[in-house]
Amino acid sequence: MDFFCIAANELHGFTVAALKAAGFTASQAQKAAPVLLHADLNGHDTHGIANLVNVYIAGARSGEINLAATGQWISDQGACATLDADGGLGLLAGQQAMERAIDKARDFGIGCVVVRNSSHFGAAGFYASMALEHGMIGMAMTNLGREPVAHPLGSMAPLMGTNPISLAAPVAAMPAPFLLDMSTTVCASGKIKQAIRRQQTIPTGWLHDAEGREVSDPGAYLDGSAMLPMLGGAYAEQGGHKGLGLGMMVEILCGVLSGAQTGADFGNPGRNSIGHFFLALSPEAFGAGEGFRSSMDRLLQYITQAPVHPAFDPLSYPGAPDLGVRTERLAQGIPVDAALLEQLDSIAGQLGISRITRTAA
Amino acid sequence: MDFFCIAANELHGFTVAALKAAGFTASQAQKAAPVLLHADLNGHDTHGIANLVNVYIAGARSGEINLAATGQWISDQGACATLDADGGLGLLAGQQAMERAIDKARDFGIGCVVVRNSSHFGAAGFYASMALEHGMIGMAMTNLGREPVAHPLGSMAPLMGTNPISLAAPVAAMPAPFLLDMSTTVCASGKIKQAIRRQQTIPTGWLHDAEGREVSDPGAYLDGSAMLPMLGGAYAEQGGHKGLGLGMMVEILCGVLSGAQTGADFGNPGRNSIGHFFLALSPEAFGAGEGFRSSMDRLLQYITQAPVHPAFDPLSYPGAPDLGVRTERLAQGIPVDAALLEQLDSIAGQLGISRITRTAA
Repeated sequence: MDFFCIAANELHGFTVAALKAAGFTASQAQKAAPVLLHADLNGHDTHGIANLVNVYIAGARSGEINLAATGQWISDQGACATLDADGGLGLLAGQQAMERAIDKARDFGIGCVVVRNSSHFGAAGFYASMALEHGMIGMAMTNLGREPVAHPLGSMAPLMGTNPISLAAPVAAMPAPFLLDMSTTVCASGKIKQAIRRQQTIPTGWLHDAEGREVSDPGAYLDGSAMLPMLGGAYAEQGGHKGLGLGMMVEILCGVLSGAQTGADFGNPGRNSIGHFFLALSPEAFGAGEGFRSSMDRLLQYITQAPVHPAFDPLSYPGAPDLGVRTERLAQGIPVDAALLEQLDSIAGQLGISRITRTAA
Repeated sequence: MDFFCIAANELHGFTVAALKAAGFTASQAQKAAPVLLHADLNGHDTHGIANLVNVYIAGARSGEINLAATGQWISDQGACATLDADGGLGLLAGQQAMERAIDKARDFGIGCVVVRNSSHFGAAGFYASMALEHGMIGMAMTNLGREPVAHPLGSMAPLMGTNPISLAAPVAAMPAPFLLDMSTTVCASGKIKQAIRRQQTIPTGWLHDAEGREVSDPGAYLDGSAMLPMLGGAYAEQGGHKGLGLGMMVEILCGVLSGAQTGADFGNPGRNSIGHFFLALSPEAFGAGEGFRSSMDRLLQYITQAPVHPAFDPLSYPGAPDLGVRTERLAQGIPVDAALLEQLDSIAGQLGISRITRTAA
């Protein structure tokens, strides 16, 4: 499949224009677009512009995302708060909630905010990273409300979401902060959809059928004959039960604690209610202060300088590869595959906005 | 290998007597012993009486565990606090810290306490579970200080601990609360040592050599020729990098944030400094109140009643199997293998305390 390199500001401008044309206010579009750009710049292609049409614009058109949402704080006690996003855009509710968690952490050392009645919030790592500029540790998680996609070993039905966990921690002199952003399934469902769009095969372990047999055709995911396994995969002895446990942990913190929906609400009528969980921690409140960042550097250097077997590349840490991708994409543009670009051209026509300008192939 | 069933109160009494004879005060021994018994009763055989001699008594004798420890709160701000355990028994420091986190959660909705200069604290699930009787969600994690045992894919050296994550959440009418307690390696190192002691083989995926090849002899772990892989195992495409990411998350929260040691301190002289991380969350502070417990029931019922393929058992959830084991062991005693019982008899002789009374085989 052909790829086109699109300049970051071009992609950003298009996203803002498309969201406005789809009914969001200018300030909402300006606030939401950076979440998608962040994913594309950092190499998380499945969580950026790839979702603009199918998730956000489709959601606004169908009413699944509430354009008239007026988010409301339904609880605010001590270091904790709960936001009801009123079915609005997760990209906005997520930022509002994480900002509040950071404010709380400034006052109480830690801040914890959960959100209900939200929608798809993009990459969890964006919100965890918001803590970094305040010298804090950030955490972000989300469930998928009542639209389960992940199959615990043996289950004939999907029972929960990809339920990602993200943690960001600041560094002193290391080039990239620590930034973990992982689904608790073997892979994120966006990677399956990307493989379908790009007509690629998928690696061993990404999909299996109801009996635990390997499936190599990503298309089988869409017709329901292939299932997304939890982390640890199809082998209980290799920790398959741990993926289920982690996925349920996220489901409890995001779905049950916030009062959002979970897989148990599958088939209910009305709008889906996705739940998020955000945490901000101030190292100063633990007596760590500036020493925290230099200790982070020491840990990350220890990992990256560890001796590796000749058959392997040097070790990296979560967040480090993102920086390399970001530097390259800021300079050379963001690669967008032809199928996705065609979809974006089509929506531009429908919304009456300018198409994306191609630069180098 | 032969097993003997030992009554729970017999095992508890022996643990208290042994800890006292090893130099702990009566109240310390009384407070520490239930942590080990909890693990044995719930089927986590690798974290209970199996560690009494090799970890706790050996530690007290060598000075690695400081019998004269005077733990000190070195920071206490808002909803956060840091405890310096002064090299004392982790089984005590862990409880002291989690109690403080629960107190904080009562005041601020959430409480977060980290510990440094601690030692092996047993099963993380014990501390997370302490939140349950207060109707709270509990979390507990620990690193292993500067004694790494886990090998990220490609690494020639172990880089971090088994770094467990535990989360407990209360229920309404379900028989067992949710209780996740998992290492971020494929299996806990205690399971390898147990297989050696019981002369058992180990499942596929539990150990590999430096080149990523499967190792089936658990003894190879002790001589350093076999390595404990991170969750996700030896296959990057199946999420091997996620185990490293989760392990590092625990290392940051337990080791770096508290000022404890990490793998980066490997080879340093003096006492090891293990770090723990505890969190307590009050559902009431999020506006969830009693509804939280009934929503938990609904989620757990949804999982346990999910349709499964005929080749599989019905799904369970973390914590549910523990209850079955606990009921059986309270009635019939705790199975202790002959090799471990021999070790316990030997230490009884050395310490001048009564041997464990055997009941049924």
